[in-house]
Amino acid sequence: MVLIFPLLICFTLHVIHAEYSFETKYLDVPIDHFSYLHNTTFKLRYLLNGHYHVKGGPAFVYTGNEGDINMFAQNTGFLFDIAPTFNALIVFIEHRYYGESLPFGNLSLSSPEHLRYLTTSQALADFVHIIDHLKNTYFSTTIGNDTLPFIAFGGSYGGMLAAWLRMKYPHSVLGAIASSAPIWFFGDIVPCEKFYAIITEVFEKFGGEHCTSIVKASWSVLRNVTSSSKGKDYLSSAWNLCSTLKTSSDTDKLIDWVSDIYVNMAMTNYHYPTDFITPLPAYSVKLFCDKLTSLNASDSKSLLENLSDALTIYTNYTGKNKCNNINSTSDDLGERAWNYQTCTELIMPMCSTDKDMFENSAWDMKKHSETCQASYGAVVSRPTWAIQEYGGKNLRYFSNIVFSNGLDDPWSCGGVLGNISSKVWAVNITDGAHHVDLRGSHPADTRYVKDARKFHVNAIKKWLGVF
Amino acid sequence: MVLIFPLLICFTLHVIHAEYSFETKYLDVPIDHFSYLHNTTFKLRYLLNGHYHVKGGPAFVYTGNEGDINMFAQNTGFLFDIAPTFNALIVFIEHRYYGESLPFGNLSLSSPEHLRYLTTSQALADFVHIIDHLKNTYFSTTIGNDTLPFIAFGGSYGGMLAAWLRMKYPHSVLGAIASSAPIWFFGDIVPCEKFYAIITEVFEKFGGEHCTSIVKASWSVLRNVTSSSKGKDYLSSAWNLCSTLKTSSDTDKLIDWVSDIYVNMAMTNYHYPTDFITPLPAYSVKLFCDKLTSLNASDSKSLLENLSDALTIYTNYTGKNKCNNINSTSDDLGERAWNYQTCTELIMPMCSTDKDMFENSAWDMKKHSETCQASYGAVVSRPTWAIQEYGGKNLRYFSNIVFSNGLDDPWSCGGVLGNISSKVWAVNITDGAHHVDLRGSHPADTRYVKDARKFHVNAIKKWLGVF
Repeated sequence: MVLIFPLLICFTLHVIHAEYSFETKYLDVPIDHFSYLHNTTFKLRYLLNGHYHVKGGPAFVYTGNEGDINMFAQNTGFLFDIAPTFNALIVFIEHRYYGESLPFGNLSLSSPEHLRYLTTSQALADFVHIIDHLKNTYFSTTIGNDTLPFIAFGGSYGGMLAAWLRMKYPHSVLGAIASSAPIWFFGDIVPCEKFYAIITEVFEKFGGEHCTSIVKASWSVLRNVTSSSKGKDYLSSAWNLCSTLKTSSDTDKLIDWVSDIYVNMAMTNYHYPTDFITPLPAYSVKLFCDKLTSLNASDSKSLLENLSDALTIYTNYTGKNKCNNINSTSDDLGERAWNYQTCTELIMPMCSTDKDMFENSAWDMKKHSETCQASYGAVVSRPTWAIQEYGGKNLRYFSNIVFSNGLDDPWSCGGVLGNISSKVWAVNITDGAHHVDLRGSHPADTRYVKDARKFHVNAIKKWLGVF
Repeated sequence: MVLIFPLLICFTLHVIHAEYSFETKYLDVPIDHFSYLHNTTFKLRYLLNGHYHVKGGPAFVYTGNEGDINMFAQNTGFLFDIAPTFNALIVFIEHRYYGESLPFGNLSLSSPEHLRYLTTSQALADFVHIIDHLKNTYFSTTIGNDTLPFIAFGGSYGGMLAAWLRMKYPHSVLGAIASSAPIWFFGDIVPCEKFYAIITEVFEKFGGEHCTSIVKASWSVLRNVTSSSKGKDYLSSAWNLCSTLKTSSDTDKLIDWVSDIYVNMAMTNYHYPTDFITPLPAYSVKLFCDKLTSLNASDSKSLLENLSDALTIYTNYTGKNKCNNINSTSDDLGERAWNYQTCTELIMPMCSTDKDMFENSAWDMKKHSETCQASYGAVVSRPTWAIQEYGGKNLRYFSNIVFSNGLDDPWSCGGVLGNISSKVWAVNITDGAHHVDLRGSHPADTRYVKDARKFHVNAIKKWLGVF
């Protein structure tokens, strides 16, 4: 079972198909916004598209999340779809410690001392810094103190940041569209079993109980088969793993790898083929379950072989994958930085019970801290920080935020699913996956997705005073 | 001319006459709220008075400023006057690095490394931390997430913090009464000459042009007389200085000391005798000017002797002062910490011109930075930080704040003097001195002060939903 959380948006080193074009820019920002000890800066990357910008139009600012900013820029077509209507400048700002925005270059993730500036507070201050720069560069002659038409957008962790940016710096951005932002996934606000329960529901909805019962049964079969060296060799071959399983820790990794695939399939169970985390067909959960349930399993081995076969929907949709690397993301820069964040201030308690299709696992804060200590050296976990800093459920005094959630997205359990006030709204997308509303429009779009996007456009018009 | 700013509320080691009683408490708070490198804490002091508290009543939280919290607790009688009406708990929280709340004990102010956690952001996070603790201790059974009846109060720098606390943490405090809070005294929002211009106006209003012209003339006389060793000896004796002037730097100190007295007299020109910064009669500015203008000056020496005589209104009102120590506050803990803050993020540009009664002085950011570097070692000045972090003039999206200002207070030039919105209000107090409205009621109170206090009470009732 995963000990460190799945990435909100997992990403691989998958080559990005660049549909949207940008100028790549860099700005020197302070490494530490919150002390006056040093004046050291680093180059924060941001992407700029001024194609639709007409003087007087606003700026749409995507608050980057846990990965290379190009990936988000290529998967947030919604901004491009609506930019012409608003004459908007489009900006994607990279999050510090991800992509190219490394405060200490290759050393950035190497020690607690280097990692100390990886916090949401510093990231928000970066965004404000860049926005101030853009304001002076592109808007100085057209806006006053009172009219700063910057709208924040973000999906997933980026959605949390977009909301928090508006909450903490309402003078910097006029409003925020926060898609699939699980800002309540902290402390004891959300029951820890909800996340895996939703994934199980999605697999049941698209694959029926037969599918989830096979998955549920598979864990002990996997454990049993891999309990011997012979079994490890067998499974490594049958599952076409890139390297042979050797230890019980390798088995744990395999289990995590499979679990993460189910998480990712539920998150990205989009209604048309996508190329986001990995190339996937439409409704991959359905295809996976259809395949799994269509194959007859007479014994443990055939169950595992069927499972491996069905998993190819995710692992090898293009047919180009030579073998399955269960460590594929472990050396990935983004993942190490993200896990640091989930160890320190973004601690999201998750657990798995008999009621879901995953291997059982209790939430254990002590164990979580110990794993974090082992991975990062002396690092402090503050499980209630995010609530103390960002208000927990008490959001009634904030304004101009739309929280949207796809109800099939497991992260929705930590999201804001109901209106908070006349100024903080929620939009729920029936059958929707992870931040589906921020994707570009598609012929297969459901009316639920279309309605959510209309809601966003109207909210932005209202905030900008454009009726 | 002063290079480092006068303290918003200057304070001496003057013995406090304790009129109000408290329990003194301490809570362990993180030294660094904004990184996860260390788990070290220090004891933050707060004062608690539960005498008027009845279950269901709110908490009135004073956000401490640049000094020992006891001093503010003894000079903010307004909270005690209104606590019975609201059944309120009264709390005064000390600001880190002042009084007893020293993160590194005696070393706290000794190096840039020790001073790095002296920021407004850390101070606000401390307040939130204490408020959370109080919430759990005193309110856990009576309030839900949605009803946290904490009201912030603060005067001067404490008023800035009260406003900023509500702006940044509206989930922590329901509203803020920010008295004499110069939150706009940054960057180029306020013309730098305004501060000394207001002081000059106050002296003219209470003492006439004759008074200010003598003061204006005195600077060159002071410089001339002290240009020789003989003159320095003469003045040291004539002004009853505790130590003899030796160098031109001593003369500069003397000039600063006199300037600061004028600043303090204008700030605390209260309408009844007070014992705040120092024991003073009612309307000390008037008494000073009356004395100065009644004495005939035939030459430079008699002018200086008259001035010294008139200054005793401030320097020796009780008759107990043996000599005048022009360094009296320079070793004072509070002053060193405050000057650090005005060097780093609270940089308030001030200058003096021919139009005011002070010695001329231009605002010179470079010189200011150099003085800061010399005083504190490697310290970074960020002149626009306070605007970037706290919104500058763009306050329209904040709520539940009352800004009050005495119009005779020089700090009012950096204050909010007009309503910002239907939820952020301004109250101006004609003839009012520095945060006079937060003082306890007094028979001599003007209707302007009384009206301001009524306004505060009504605002708090509105916020609490008590009509």
